[in-house]
Amino acid sequence: MDLIAQTIAAIAPADAAARGAAADRLDRMTKPRGSLGRVEDVAITLAGIAGACPPPVPEPAAVAVFAADHGVHVQGVTPWPQEVTGQMVSNFLAGGAVVNAFARQFGADVCVVDVGVRYPIYPARSAGGARVGADPGLLSRRIAAGTADLTAGPALIREQARAAVEVGIEMARELVAVGNRCLLTGDMGIANTTAAALLICAFTGADPAAATGRGTGIDDATLERKTGVVRRALALHRPDPTDPIGVLAAFGGLEHAALAGFVLGGAALRVPVLLDGVNAGAAALVAAVLSPDVVAYCLAGHRSTEPGHRLALAHLRLEPLLDLGIRLGEGTGALLALPVAQAAARAMQDVATFDAAGVIDKDA
Amino acid sequence: MDLIAQTIAAIAPADAAARGAAADRLDRMTKPRGSLGRVEDVAITLAGIAGACPPPVPEPAAVAVFAADHGVHVQGVTPWPQEVTGQMVSNFLAGGAVVNAFARQFGADVCVVDVGVRYPIYPARSAGGARVGADPGLLSRRIAAGTADLTAGPALIREQARAAVEVGIEMARELVAVGNRCLLTGDMGIANTTAAALLICAFTGADPAAATGRGTGIDDATLERKTGVVRRALALHRPDPTDPIGVLAAFGGLEHAALAGFVLGGAALRVPVLLDGVNAGAAALVAAVLSPDVVAYCLAGHRSTEPGHRLALAHLRLEPLLDLGIRLGEGTGALLALPVAQAAARAMQDVATFDAAGVIDKDA
Repeated sequence: MDLIAQTIAAIAPADAAARGAAADRLDRMTKPRGSLGRVEDVAITLAGIAGACPPPVPEPAAVAVFAADHGVHVQGVTPWPQEVTGQMVSNFLAGGAVVNAFARQFGADVCVVDVGVRYPIYPARSAGGARVGADPGLLSRRIAAGTADLTAGPALIREQARAAVEVGIEMARELVAVGNRCLLTGDMGIANTTAAALLICAFTGADPAAATGRGTGIDDATLERKTGVVRRALALHRPDPTDPIGVLAAFGGLEHAALAGFVLGGAALRVPVLLDGVNAGAAALVAAVLSPDVVAYCLAGHRSTEPGHRLALAHLRLEPLLDLGIRLGEGTGALLALPVAQAAARAMQDVATFDAAGVIDKDA
Repeated sequence: MDLIAQTIAAIAPADAAARGAAADRLDRMTKPRGSLGRVEDVAITLAGIAGACPPPVPEPAAVAVFAADHGVHVQGVTPWPQEVTGQMVSNFLAGGAVVNAFARQFGADVCVVDVGVRYPIYPARSAGGARVGADPGLLSRRIAAGTADLTAGPALIREQARAAVEVGIEMARELVAVGNRCLLTGDMGIANTTAAALLICAFTGADPAAATGRGTGIDDATLERKTGVVRRALALHRPDPTDPIGVLAAFGGLEHAALAGFVLGGAALRVPVLLDGVNAGAAALVAAVLSPDVVAYCLAGHRSTEPGHRLALAHLRLEPLLDLGIRLGEGTGALLALPVAQAAARAMQDVATFDAAGVIDKDA
């Protein structure tokens, strides 16, 4: 059995008994019933993932930033030059990007994975501002020097798509093997919201106009061009949503494939996966076709402003924890939600019950 | 000059130059402009509060939980017995409440202040689950054994209201004096959402039906009774919104008065104040009449499900960071937003600019 099939076979449904025990415990904790709102849902989800009540606090945590380039860039879907993917990877390695700052603040590790950056990655020119904490190393897991132009043919061959999914699975395994108990998705790839929109259209059936957004902030003319690219590519490839590897091959990107594998890998190891924005949402759609049980291991960190993200999350029936108007990627939105997930588990661990604390329960 | 007047005199407007420098720096940081959404607003607010760009990370942080009882409890506005206020204080002291768990997870201190709990506070029966970290001590700053029934007359005399405001100012001073650089509001008081609704009606002009909510989760009949109590009390006291001490005296509570002072105290020391839910929102309305500049020192941690909270925040023009359906109080919603505020400042400190990192800026 190959790595993907083996991983899928290892994914079990969330533990219903642990979820039930968590719901019961929440009702006996010294607080009005239901008064922690969505945090209670998170606590129940974490219990189901861990198969334990109370669930362990999901720490330490690591964010894997999968970086890759996109052949569709030549279609003018973004004003950012393609060189910026590699430049931002250098910035991650120097610890100077937002993902580094957020991870440093929250004590999370950052792991940068090159799955297909087109241009050479040079050492960063600057280490940024004053900082503490180790800067991440670069893991080279290159499948290709970026994808091919999906308007002319498949972005990848099937074997490349499978290999990129395997990179993601392996990254999840490695990060858990070194002790991490929470995985966060990160991504970097100029033009990757075009591939994300295509994946979202393929799996949700959404119209390109509904799923295509402004990404890093494009103007009306570029948005119109980008939407047209998405529409033409859908007509060209006629993606079959029951063949997720085929859809990945059609549209890429290498980072989406790796992210899908990362989600599968986390689920197989019963570790919660905190999803970042639209690229993670698109990748989770791929993973959910490969293994529907995977969704129970995911928490949606935030809602991006990218319209396709809302469609992806609705399809997955995931409700995002934060809604802060972020559209940066890198894992930044997942990181901001990490403390909420950790606090939910901490409350399950630490909060006294009415009985134990000698507090009168009006509902008892 | 008395303490309140002295504190108000010390509150300066937020630093416009630092705010401008922060906005400028955000546009040069290695991320698409505006891509951090609301986090960018927080960063600018923190710069304006500190008078520095980049602003310092708001840590260490402390939450002050002001606890008090309410004479209006006799009107049947809640099914929880009044003893629960003191019982929950015992629970805070034993470290077994949700505020303790969240604070422990985020490395914040908890400070419990009795400003008027009616029943004696007994040692907690249980220390709850397995925990690390010191449990808080109790600060006794009692102004009265709870407020009087506001349906029969004023909840407090003016001097009591002033004294409770001063307790809050002093707590802010003490917490900053021992090194805290972020203050979080917390509250505990069975029936306190009735007082909060009255304060919100008094300062926003809202109708009692719009401002009165289910608090800890009351049934329809109790909500109708509670709304009627609010309506009758407004008619009885005819509060003058330009006389905030008079409004506090009419309705209480002692914890709202202390919270108003706490907000003033933080602002006077140029320390950000992270507001929790509806009780903090009501208290911030009081503080904002005493000193309109105070609002620039506040961050709204979350939006509570209590309808009056939305009205209070809209009146203050504060947009909450989180919206997780929490209605617990204690400071829990403020604590969950603390990491977002800290991450915003950390990004300002650490993230490289396009120039420094050698990343091409499409907007340059």
